Amino acid sequence: MSMVKETLPNHHETTHDLQRFAAQLDKWVENDRFYTAEGACASYIPALQKADPAQLGVVMVGSDGTVLQSGDSEASFTLQSISKVISFMAACIDFGTSYVLDRVDVEPTGDAFNSIVRLELHKPGKPFNPMINAGALTVASMLGKRTPQEKVESFVSLINRMTGRRPAINEEVFQSEWITAHRNRALAYYLQENGYLEADVEDALEVYLKQCSVEINATNIAMIGLVLAHDGYHPILKEQILPVQVARITKALMVTCGMYNASGKFAAFIGLPAKSGVSGGIMAVVPSHAGSPQSPFPNGCGIGIYGPAIDDVGNSVAGSKLLKQIAREWNMSIF
Amino acid sequence: MSMVKETLPNHHETTHDLQRFAAQLDKWVENDRFYTAEGACASYIPALQKADPAQLGVVMVGSDGTVLQSGDSEASFTLQSISKVISFMAACIDFGTSYVLDRVDVEPTGDAFNSIVRLELHKPGKPFNPMINAGALTVASMLGKRTPQEKVESFVSLINRMTGRRPAINEEVFQSEWITAHRNRALAYYLQENGYLEADVEDALEVYLKQCSVEINATNIAMIGLVLAHDGYHPILKEQILPVQVARITKALMVTCGMYNASGKFAAFIGLPAKSGVSGGIMAVVPSHAGSPQSPFPNGCGIGIYGPAIDDVGNSVAGSKLLKQIAREWNMSIF
Amino acid sequence: MSMVKETLPNHHETTHDLQRFAAQLDKWVENDRFYTAEGACASYIPALQKADPAQLGVVMVGSDGTVLQSGDSEASFTLQSISKVISFMAACIDFGTSYVLDRVDVEPTGDAFNSIVRLELHKPGKPFNPMINAGALTVASMLGKRTPQEKVESFVSLINRMTGRRPAINEEVFQSEWITAHRNRALAYYLQENGYLEADVEDALEVYLKQCSVEINATNIAMIGLVLAHDGYHPILKEQILPVQVARITKALMVTCGMYNASGKFAAFIGLPAKSGVSGGIMAVVPSHAGSPQSPFPNGCGIGIYGPAIDDVGNSVAGSKLLKQIAREWNMSIF
Amino acid sequence: MSMVKETLPNHHETTHDLQRFAAQLDKWVENDRFYTAEGACASYIPALQKADPAQLGVVMVGSDGTVLQSGDSEASFTLQSISKVISFMAACIDFGTSYVLDRVDVEPTGDAFNSIVRLELHKPGKPFNPMINAGALTVASMLGKRTPQEKVESFVSLINRMTGRRPAINEEVFQSEWITAHRNRALAYYLQENGYLEADVEDALEVYLKQCSVEINATNIAMIGLVLAHDGYHPILKEQILPVQVARITKALMVTCGMYNASGKFAAFIGLPAKSGVSGGIMAVVPSHAGSPQSPFPNGCGIGIYGPAIDDVGNSVAGSKLLKQIAREWNMSIF
Repeated sequence: MSMVKETLPNHHETTHDLQRFAAQLDKWVENDRFYTAEGACASYIPALQKADPAQLGVVMVGSDGTVLQSGDSEASFTLQSISKVISFMAACIDFGTSYVLDRVDVEPTGDAFNSIVRLELHKPGKPFNPMINAGALTVASMLGKRTPQEKVESFVSLINRMTGRRPAINEEVFQSEWITAHRNRALAYYLQENGYLEADVEDALEVYLKQCSVEINATNIAMIGLVLAHDGYHPILKEQILPVQVARITKALMVTCGMYNASGKFAAFIGLPAKSGVSGGIMAVVPSHAGSPQSPFPNGCGIGIYGPAIDDVGNSVAGSKLLKQIAREWNMSIF
Repeated sequence: MSMVKETLPNHHETTHDLQRFAAQLDKWVENDRFYTAEGACASYIPALQKADPAQLGVVMVGSDGTVLQSGDSEASFTLQSISKVISFMAACIDFGTSYVLDRVDVEPTGDAFNSIVRLELHKPGKPFNPMINAGALTVASMLGKRTPQEKVESFVSLINRMTGRRPAINEEVFQSEWITAHRNRALAYYLQENGYLEADVEDALEVYLKQCSVEINATNIAMIGLVLAHDGYHPILKEQILPVQVARITKALMVTCGMYNASGKFAAFIGLPAKSGVSGGIMAVVPSHAGSPQSPFPNGCGIGIYGPAIDDVGNSVAGSKLLKQIAREWNMSIF
Repeated sequence: MSMVKETLPNHHETTHDLQRFAAQLDKWVENDRFYTAEGACASYIPALQKADPAQLGVVMVGSDGTVLQSGDSEASFTLQSISKVISFMAACIDFGTSYVLDRVDVEPTGDAFNSIVRLELHKPGKPFNPMINAGALTVASMLGKRTPQEKVESFVSLINRMTGRRPAINEEVFQSEWITAHRNRALAYYLQENGYLEADVEDALEVYLKQCSVEINATNIAMIGLVLAHDGYHPILKEQILPVQVARITKALMVTCGMYNASGKFAAFIGLPAKSGVSGGIMAVVPSHAGSPQSPFPNGCGIGIYGPAIDDVGNSVAGSKLLKQIAREWNMSIF
Repeated sequence: MSMVKETLPNHHETTHDLQRFAAQLDKWVENDRFYTAEGACASYIPALQKADPAQLGVVMVGSDGTVLQSGDSEASFTLQSISKVISFMAACIDFGTSYVLDRVDVEPTGDAFNSIVRLELHKPGKPFNPMINAGALTVASMLGKRTPQEKVESFVSLINRMTGRRPAINEEVFQSEWITAHRNRALAYYLQENGYLEADVEDALEVYLKQCSVEINATNIAMIGLVLAHDGYHPILKEQILPVQVARITKALMVTCGMYNASGKFAAFIGLPAKSGVSGGIMAVVPSHAGSPQSPFPNGCGIGIYGPAIDDVGNSVAGSKLLKQIAREWNMSIF
């Protein structure tokens, strides 16, 4: 366990309070770690398989810079589907929400994340939302300028601005995904046929798989969550990074489609915007107004969780349990 | 226009403030009424066709009893799909959320509200959520005790408790729906085959179509919204009517699946839990913590809207515009 | 084993030849009976469950009245889906093919026999063919005059004309099917909503389930097959019972959709028009021109098979093997 | 019009008879040419768009070499989907039917020819039949040896053996198809992911699109039909080119899935195995036993038709009418 009290004072938190909160968090992590046994690391790429399934860690960052962290909070992992949230924000910054939403809808669907069915049945093939692979490929194809390098740069630099750290791409993971991307290629060609790809198939795939392969840690995604918690305003840098509307649409998308086919259950039982990836990460947001006086973060916070053992749906098993416990015990919910 | 200031004092609202807010609301209603021309009254039952498509009205009720209302706010209409929210709450009160959620899931789906496809493709036919017809039929079949009368009573009495008024069933609408309920009968028999109906098909249909035919007005649904805004606590009666968890799950369901196939867009662009019906009603919730200081209701409120001209998806055209304007101008959002 | 030489002489068959053919058939029945162990009697209605799964019998009837039969050829069973062929013919006789084909298509589909998906996805809900339940319900709703009794009579009297025997309805089977017909009711209401039912739902269901419950034996269905073999002409009664076009469309439907989801495999590997039922019956047709000189029936024949142990798809396991062996060994194929 | 009487004598045809038959055929072609106005040339590749939509021609070849032809019977066109029949036969010759049918099923489906839905819904993605694009891609990937050149050679040389002419590939059509093959690439990657592709995606596509681009004429496809009419035996060369079983499975596939989504209607109303392509060709088969004494070909024949104006489903409008007229007037049917 470690607990960091940053420089800025917070109206109700004394060192004593924070120690109490930190102890609670440690206990929950310790208990929820047992659930890691109910899942397994994603098997479809070797690199993900190498992770230690027993890991579980969490980082919470408040608007004054207060950080609470516990467990395996320093572990590095690849973004995978969490990247879909970030590329959506980057595309909205680059082109405006109207342009982006002309090319991808924001409706949830009960289909699997890599489903192609709805593209065929619902002409003319506009992807249902940016959190399924089809929509994420469309978004990746738009990003930045013309070349894949420029598109990846648009994505990476947004992370840099929000986290203060320029992330690297895990080349092993990228190569591994590139080789086995048959299904995503099928989706991309389908999108291209229907005019929902703004780049060549191979370029769009390169961008998409590179954004999935970006190395990150729980603190980084907690920082991104924090910016979303404040409607795009970075409370530590004191800078509006995203337009308010983009931040709100993003949080709405996380609630309606962020947790794969368990999104409805997350909304119902946890009640916080969240996005998961098959590497075991979860990025969650406690919007400033949903912060609770019973919690260490009365003005909201960003939450980063890592637990590589995932369930059938693709969400971190122990991470989901931990997030539910945090939300319930500290009474944080947008509803 | 009318504006009612109830007895309880509110920390920031003076009579002057409320007059200003009321004037704003009047202006928006006046402007948004133009959009009624873009929709049409639901045609599949004659009784709905009789409504005046140019109507538009709104009622907002705050926790201290403050009421703001404007336009055709006194009009009476049938609940239609708004009833799905109420029957879900009634079933959870009667049997607990575990029992209810064993029989109906809470996942959004991009399918039409009366779709049967997913019941067939996703064995063994558990309905995806209580906001689509299949799920609502399952919920209706559970309600109360054994007979259809007892089941309808469970529903009606919950409305009575929340609104202080015992609503009547519009017999003409009910008969009209009963005669043309082929598709709902198809759904009900399908559910029965798969064991997701807790009553006979005809009984379940009677309950469901009666709940759809309950007469209500904008004030009534604003009151129900207010109870949800306070997590099931009735701030005027000072009574906990629903368990907190039931209220939160209900609000989550409204966000993920409350506005038919435009639910994702409502979440993204309006950001309030809302449920619509084809009669043109919309029930919306501003949770207490999402209330904004720039609004007349800093502690949240319930909103009832009526505008019978609906769009292709089934939502009130002008009502949706009005709700969007209210939420944006007064900065009310759960995100 | 038994072998019956009827009165009419046949140009190439001597008593000696027929004895040889009969011996072959006996041997095949004996061998194929082993395959009954690979299937099981249909379980969804108790009456079908009572059949002896080890039974296997066959009757072949030629145009001169020659009958070859072997095994449990006298057993009585209910028509089930074989009735779909007969009601289609009856409707075409009653109303003409144009009228019937305006209400039901003739395209094969890879969906399950009781699927509802395609009715929803392919607006406006016209059933794909008369061999799936949806199409058979539409056909049953058309038959004869107004009442269910008259409709059933249209069906029963056609069987009487073709087989010389007025069949009875197995009331136990009918009651059993009536009680558990949830899925068929769902289909029927769906059809009614889309205007593809020419009778009330309950009447259409009564007719359909009664036609399924008609008692028949292998000789009877072989006789019906014989009439089809001669394009609707009854070679023994010397009477044209069906228009040629109706007989040909019927045989085409049997080839493209007669054997549930194994229709394509039957066409490819057996090559004879055939229709099966879950009671274990198979009616097959060797059209007159497809009769082979190496067979006992150079001018074609009708074939009735009974073997109540069915496979996953719904076809008699041993019956299918037997039909394949007969077709191959005696070189009978329409291709 | 032209009529060719080849060297071999035919038992019932005198020159006088043939002249009468030829006159009939001329009249039908003349009349049916009016129907070309109801269709249009395929638009998705420029090269097909260049064809003259008013063209209509037919060639019929009998087992003794008698040829009847009429209209634009010399026109050259690309095989398009007719190639699916030939590549299926080539794969069966190269690897045996068991090997081929382990990788592609033979069940009809009501889905569009380029549909991907069923691959997703019916795990694990085995294509339903070789006449839809998915199945044809699987078959193309198997053909011959390892390289695309060798695979195309396997296809081309089979045509050479059956028609006596080595066909060329229309490079303009191939290039045109290659550039716009997004949907086929999507299908191919999907197949690869599920293990139903025996070559690289790009190689399989090259083979498939080259086989579609093979230049042919009505006489050539009539010759192939003639070989199928005689169960794989070439009656003029007096050589068994295909195993009997392969020929029969092929004819069965043509009946159940040869004419896109009108296959059922072709079986019902025409009753001959047939395969069409979007270039406007139709290859049809009158099996030897289905030849009729009223026709010029009492021992069956092969039929090649060309009429580039196609209908919504993809079949030649006038060509379908002509085939129906020929079959009905000369009483040729497999049923």
